[in-house]
Amino acid sequence: MAQKPSIPRGTRDFSPAEMVGREYIFDTIKKIFRKYGYAPLETPAMENLSTLLGKYGEEGDKLLFKVLNSGDFIRNIPENVWKTPDSHKILPYISEKGLRFDLTVPFARYVVQHRNEITFPFKRYQIQPVWRADKPQKGRYREFYQCDVDVIGSDSSLNEVELLQINDEVFRSLGINTLTKCNNRKILAGISELMGASDQMTDITIAIDKHEKIGIEGVKNELKEKGLSDSAIEKLEPVFGLSGTNEQKLQAIENIVKDSEIGRKGVQEMRELFSYLSYLELDANMEFDVKLARGLNYYTGSIFEVKASDVELGSICGGGRYDDLTGIFGLKDVSGVGISFGADRIYDVMEKLDVFPNEVQETTRLMFVNFGGAALNYCLALAYRMRQEGVSCEIYPEASKMKKQMNYANKKDIPFVAIVGEDELQQNKVTLKDMQSGEQKTISWELLVNEL
Amino acid sequence: MAQKPSIPRGTRDFSPAEMVGREYIFDTIKKIFRKYGYAPLETPAMENLSTLLGKYGEEGDKLLFKVLNSGDFIRNIPENVWKTPDSHKILPYISEKGLRFDLTVPFARYVVQHRNEITFPFKRYQIQPVWRADKPQKGRYREFYQCDVDVIGSDSSLNEVELLQINDEVFRSLGINTLTKCNNRKILAGISELMGASDQMTDITIAIDKHEKIGIEGVKNELKEKGLSDSAIEKLEPVFGLSGTNEQKLQAIENIVKDSEIGRKGVQEMRELFSYLSYLELDANMEFDVKLARGLNYYTGSIFEVKASDVELGSICGGGRYDDLTGIFGLKDVSGVGISFGADRIYDVMEKLDVFPNEVQETTRLMFVNFGGAALNYCLALAYRMRQEGVSCEIYPEASKMKKQMNYANKKDIPFVAIVGEDELQQNKVTLKDMQSGEQKTISWELLVNEL
Repeated sequence: MAQKPSIPRGTRDFSPAEMVGREYIFDTIKKIFRKYGYAPLETPAMENLSTLLGKYGEEGDKLLFKVLNSGDFIRNIPENVWKTPDSHKILPYISEKGLRFDLTVPFARYVVQHRNEITFPFKRYQIQPVWRADKPQKGRYREFYQCDVDVIGSDSSLNEVELLQINDEVFRSLGINTLTKCNNRKILAGISELMGASDQMTDITIAIDKHEKIGIEGVKNELKEKGLSDSAIEKLEPVFGLSGTNEQKLQAIENIVKDSEIGRKGVQEMRELFSYLSYLELDANMEFDVKLARGLNYYTGSIFEVKASDVELGSICGGGRYDDLTGIFGLKDVSGVGISFGADRIYDVMEKLDVFPNEVQETTRLMFVNFGGAALNYCLALAYRMRQEGVSCEIYPEASKMKKQMNYANKKDIPFVAIVGEDELQQNKVTLKDMQSGEQKTISWELLVNEL
Repeated sequence: MAQKPSIPRGTRDFSPAEMVGREYIFDTIKKIFRKYGYAPLETPAMENLSTLLGKYGEEGDKLLFKVLNSGDFIRNIPENVWKTPDSHKILPYISEKGLRFDLTVPFARYVVQHRNEITFPFKRYQIQPVWRADKPQKGRYREFYQCDVDVIGSDSSLNEVELLQINDEVFRSLGINTLTKCNNRKILAGISELMGASDQMTDITIAIDKHEKIGIEGVKNELKEKGLSDSAIEKLEPVFGLSGTNEQKLQAIENIVKDSEIGRKGVQEMRELFSYLSYLELDANMEFDVKLARGLNYYTGSIFEVKASDVELGSICGGGRYDDLTGIFGLKDVSGVGISFGADRIYDVMEKLDVFPNEVQETTRLMFVNFGGAALNYCLALAYRMRQEGVSCEIYPEASKMKKQMNYANKKDIPFVAIVGEDELQQNKVTLKDMQSGEQKTISWELLVNEL
């Protein structure tokens, strides 16, 4: 026999058992997005490399999957480039397209490209796979889904409120308790200003972002390596020492950044957000955490990160406000805010918590045993009726031995089996077997739908 | 301003207006697949080139999108290959992965790879995009969705019956009248045998497949070019001349192929299928057409092709039985049958027939005008309630001028707008405006949900 086929490293097949759980998650999320007036959008898997390159930093450029030009792909390589073999130099001549790395850059590209057709504020959601040539490891894949929901073209904090309502409703619907940390990049900008290092805000953000991994000392060391002075770094001390209620922490940070205009603006935005959240009774699971930084550079206002309370699995949702995402494509000063749900991790959390509803796991509710002949015809008609009533059912396709057919139903976790033999056929009845309890009863076919 | 960004040729963005229609089609199809006991499967976008190459013929190999190896991709090119620039020879050293070309080969790969975990007969559906480097033209794209439903591991014709029931139910649900043509490859094999050209069945099939484009004379000419004798080609004459009811045509063809065992088997299979279909009253829109050939070589039994009756747009669904799909990956003698729905064409047909339900086109049912302050808080609470009742609604995020807000609702085709001003707030009421008729009335908030 030929060698067993396989799939590329870091990619996955999703078997039916996994897919029904995944579809349950996607359907739940979609339904909620729509209830808040967000509309679906899809963009192509391949984007021009000119759209993708330079948007994710140098490291990101390396992690993009590039698609080889069709046909005689080497024909465009100039002779002098050909002579000195260098992948980096040859690349632009043999590849023009890449697989999308996230949904944010394609979204920004879409908004700019279609700005004259779009009604702003533009509320969209997008659920599609993305690809990254990361080193595959546990929990990290080269193909995975992102579920993004964004509103672009409005800087009102009501948008943040709405996204946090969605966040709350999604996880309550899925049965996951969560803690949502939030912060505001303007507060971080204020702190950088007070450290006399406004121009190094990115370094400071990236360092703070690592505090859970490397500890506070680690953050300080990293900042020192980046050239910040001891006195500057010292100013971070009270920031790391905040404690108490959200309001107490906000008061403390307000005091710390009082000499920075942008810092005060950040505190004010947080206050406004929290006042809405407390009115909507959504603040119980929200924690203001000034150490939350989120690595991505395009955030400029509020930022969020959501973790499951009862399982340690990293963040399952996150996002924030960006004031100039479309600027990279030439459309300036359009503010937006969005969050992204991590479907893969949400699936893992739900598996560990065992919170998938039972109905989700079954794809067939009723199987008809196949005895062929007139009994089969009877079952065909009955199956037709059951499906009209919305009952998912199937007829075993071959008149095999009873044992084989029951075995199939068992393996597929089909909860009910209908048996129509000679006797049942004459009496116009059906024997219904509950596969879990083993109980069976013979009933008239009209009653079958009530039993299921 | 920077150059307006664009997307690769032959790919598409799907705007919200298009997406809601597409999702309606996918959801309808999925729901029906599930009602018949088919379970979802997903495979990765990238497959190893060893899985894909050689499965779609020489032309198909060219149309595969190949993904460049990550990192220093030229490092593995041997010096002698490097010296004679030849894309074809260099390819295996710089690319190991490709984008899937269809869902059938990945499905066969999955079945072989997971054969020990799968319960046979294995009923699965798969709805994912595929990629082909075809020359882009009207109605032909480089990225498009396929919706496949297959059962593998059973040669019972009940499977065909079930798929034709699904076919019928899908198009009835979507409001499309169809005609389904069907044939059996064994009949075509029988005819080839009678022409003394069993070894040229592929040529014969491909030629017959083109009869709609090139006419019967064209088919004959093509067969002549392929080396078939005039006397052999003459034997096709009565085949093309069949007319009458399905049963009359079956009788005529039975007579023609009576000396071919495989031909007789094909007629018998068609008879069995039609007897089920007539029992289920599904034969009205089914036409036996011996000229239906379907180009793909892996079909070995029944074949189907579905067209819309009221719009000319090519086939919108098709499929058939294959007896050795998994053989290419080393697993012999596993029979399966499947059909595939063409979502893009179905969308176009529904657009032309104007059969999308009205509800499908709206993403938001109710918009609250935003006046800020206490009225806004009132609307926030009310919107919360409305969403609990399943009403999709949104609050305009900024307290802009009334005209701007109404303009937004208009452009987004939101059918109802709720206005809560000073007066309404004091009386605990809401003014509801029907955006189509322009009528408005002031009602108590408890009645709002009933109005929508």
